[in-house]
Amino acid sequence: MYRNDLSLLTDFYEMTMMQGYHKTEQENKIAVFDVFFRDNPSKGGYAIATGLQQVIEYIEQLHFSDCDLDYIKSLNVFNDEFIEYLKNFKFTGEIYAIPEGTVVFPMEPLLRVKAPIMQAQLVETAILNIINHQSLIATKASRVVWAAQGDPVLEFGLRRAQGPDAGTLGARAAIIGGCSGTSNVLAGKLFDVPVKGTHAHSWVMSFNSEIEAFRTYANKFPNDCTLLVDTYNTLTQGVPDAIKCFEEMREKGIELKHYGIRLDSGDLAYLSKRARKMLDDAGFNDAVISASSDLDENLIASLKIQGAKVGAWGVGTRLITSNDCPSFGGVYKLSAETDENGNFVPKIKLSNNTAKITIPGIKKVIRVYDKETNKIKADLIALESECYSDEMPLTLFDHNATWKTMTLQPKKYYLRELLVPVFIDGKCVYKSPSVMEIKQTAQKELDTLWEEHRRLSNPHILPVDLSEPLYLLREKMIRSLG
Amino acid sequence: MYRNDLSLLTDFYEMTMMQGYHKTEQENKIAVFDVFFRDNPSKGGYAIATGLQQVIEYIEQLHFSDCDLDYIKSLNVFNDEFIEYLKNFKFTGEIYAIPEGTVVFPMEPLLRVKAPIMQAQLVETAILNIINHQSLIATKASRVVWAAQGDPVLEFGLRRAQGPDAGTLGARAAIIGGCSGTSNVLAGKLFDVPVKGTHAHSWVMSFNSEIEAFRTYANKFPNDCTLLVDTYNTLTQGVPDAIKCFEEMREKGIELKHYGIRLDSGDLAYLSKRARKMLDDAGFNDAVISASSDLDENLIASLKIQGAKVGAWGVGTRLITSNDCPSFGGVYKLSAETDENGNFVPKIKLSNNTAKITIPGIKKVIRVYDKETNKIKADLIALESECYSDEMPLTLFDHNATWKTMTLQPKKYYLRELLVPVFIDGKCVYKSPSVMEIKQTAQKELDTLWEEHRRLSNPHILPVDLSEPLYLLREKMIRSLG
Repeated sequence: MYRNDLSLLTDFYEMTMMQGYHKTEQENKIAVFDVFFRDNPSKGGYAIATGLQQVIEYIEQLHFSDCDLDYIKSLNVFNDEFIEYLKNFKFTGEIYAIPEGTVVFPMEPLLRVKAPIMQAQLVETAILNIINHQSLIATKASRVVWAAQGDPVLEFGLRRAQGPDAGTLGARAAIIGGCSGTSNVLAGKLFDVPVKGTHAHSWVMSFNSEIEAFRTYANKFPNDCTLLVDTYNTLTQGVPDAIKCFEEMREKGIELKHYGIRLDSGDLAYLSKRARKMLDDAGFNDAVISASSDLDENLIASLKIQGAKVGAWGVGTRLITSNDCPSFGGVYKLSAETDENGNFVPKIKLSNNTAKITIPGIKKVIRVYDKETNKIKADLIALESECYSDEMPLTLFDHNATWKTMTLQPKKYYLRELLVPVFIDGKCVYKSPSVMEIKQTAQKELDTLWEEHRRLSNPHILPVDLSEPLYLLREKMIRSLG
Repeated sequence: MYRNDLSLLTDFYEMTMMQGYHKTEQENKIAVFDVFFRDNPSKGGYAIATGLQQVIEYIEQLHFSDCDLDYIKSLNVFNDEFIEYLKNFKFTGEIYAIPEGTVVFPMEPLLRVKAPIMQAQLVETAILNIINHQSLIATKASRVVWAAQGDPVLEFGLRRAQGPDAGTLGARAAIIGGCSGTSNVLAGKLFDVPVKGTHAHSWVMSFNSEIEAFRTYANKFPNDCTLLVDTYNTLTQGVPDAIKCFEEMREKGIELKHYGIRLDSGDLAYLSKRARKMLDDAGFNDAVISASSDLDENLIASLKIQGAKVGAWGVGTRLITSNDCPSFGGVYKLSAETDENGNFVPKIKLSNNTAKITIPGIKKVIRVYDKETNKIKADLIALESECYSDEMPLTLFDHNATWKTMTLQPKKYYLRELLVPVFIDGKCVYKSPSVMEIKQTAQKELDTLWEEHRRLSNPHILPVDLSEPLYLLREKMIRSLG
């Protein structure tokens, strides 16, 4: 378990609302909340659902210690009965979620909580915090990896991450999004993912000469030897010193396998081409040129177009903070609640901003694939009670422009329900795959998108439609409340 | 202690470098590293140094458990001798730092580590991670609070923060930067800071009517009753329902003290003015209108100019992620090292980018205040061995444009050394103030700036100069290496 001290990781208003419900008739209501987001991060065409494992661990560790209760009491806002209730608190509800690594789109429920309203309210903040953070970074990483066109991308951002968790859970998400490794040793230990790195400028500065620093490093790590060549002057000193070092290794009969240089400043297009030629001329055609220095997906794409001779990318700050879009706008909205007879009644929140009107009812997400290409055609949000089969023609329509329809013929498509059971009656019924397995899932998931959906800007937008019964329910509720 | 499991929170290359130094003559070197940054966040005129308490806790918890060592061994990169060394690892060095809450400027050392090179290298990543994150958020918060012109600003960002730590340590930093409270209950418990919040839209939706939801809330929390009025229609329903609720409380003889409404969507300028008039007309002149909804310092400044009738601001996503500038570019650079005789030798890193050339030598930071106004005149970075006294005229010069000079007359200024001892011989000699005390320090510190330095864009830049001996040393080293 990553952390077991997060029970108070919640907004204060969750607790005031809980006390507000406590010992009233509301208390017995079962509420259904959906986690969803309204816009893809970085103006892209998709997101990658990530963070479920930490949500599970959060739910499993939920309890209030005496120390927590003493603190809550000290606030002089909560009554003794409520604190007594918290003493025995545990989560007894149900959670369905889309598995980690799945590509997801705006408006569809990524996670659905069905629980007594006080419980469902308490867990809102931590669930959002975890899913918002990791989905953001996994999505960002997948964009950077896409730009690198098959070159390995390493996550190097720990020192600029927004705190220890952002660096560590961020590294987890970056690996899921497609990074080949991380510099973060703690992430390596906790999540069994590859850790990478060689040396810093300080290593070079701490020797009397650059060549002495390189020699010592090569001597200690002959099997994985990437030399940082820009401490003094990259082309007149750093690259020649590295070549000299590799020649000495070759003369000693050391087999050079994983070796090369790293460029960490300057014009990476120009420097990499010049360095490549110098390395090739010296017979080191298989030396890898790594590059780092405030990289992101757009810079890498630009360097690729310029023909930069970079074979591996170290990406730090702008990946680990998702620099251009540092938050994922996941929200947690009430969609249904039991009435006095225990029957679920759909709930809706209106807004002057039509994009902010919620989708009522207990819902499922059905992914529609094209049978020939295995690419996603559309996602369909439907009421849980609806049934679909690929034996029948399927007509989808845009709920914001209902005249736009698409009909799929039987056997030309297939369906998959995305939400899977995670907690039933408070018990976890889901086993998280390993991070490296989730990374593979994400890779396969990304392959169900066309390149047009993956491109960095102005992507083609995949339709996420409402089923007809859900559309009609929502329209009726809007009209009755509006 | 916030966390005690962070010993592996380091970049892999710190460990390869450590093994590189181990059992060589380098191993006995004492190295000096400076933490500094090159640009103020958000293009502002200053930053607030924050995070020292967590750095202290990180250094104090540093040790490698058996489980950590097993993991390191499993990487098949490190030899048994080195792992044996790690088994007994503890930090034995010296750390000086600028106290939390102090306003700081580019290029000056915020923290200085002097330790055996292997130790000094290991701690780089975590120190940067902690200081970069919290200094970023404290600085951002101070900008938001400045824009609010004395109105309370509440930190509401946990659900959008980059993981649990970003929400919790971010709340700590936000309070230090000037926020009046946070929604994060865990931050409240850990750092003894005020927690705030009332209810969400789901509260209103879960009752049969808005007025019933308001009544129930007011009944439960008569002493701190802020009603969220935008679940259905703010002006035609929400505000009238809130007024009705307050009237009922007044009729029952309940003393209305901390009460009001919250606007969370729509045009906050227009809605707040209309709502203010409705509340005033009903005799609720002291009801506070709170506003939230993707706010930041620029939006608040704009709302202020428009005469918005908002008395308290809830700021979430854009504060807790420092949306416009989600990283603080603190770096950790070698500045001196002992030679074979144990004497410290200054070190420098060159760069084609002159702004990236480091400042060599063991340094101190002297703040120069104007005696009449108590405002900062300039910061002076000097060698540790230099002595200054306000009995003498002080001439400062811009090291990038040496003809620009400023001479201060004796007794017209006073001096303060900013770096204070934190660890000596591995022992902590510094007691962190409470977060609320640091918040007060930050407020006093911000008062040593003119408004011209605090304004949101194109601020007046405070000079950070090098002393003449330091300037001459640096020039000599650049010429000899360049």
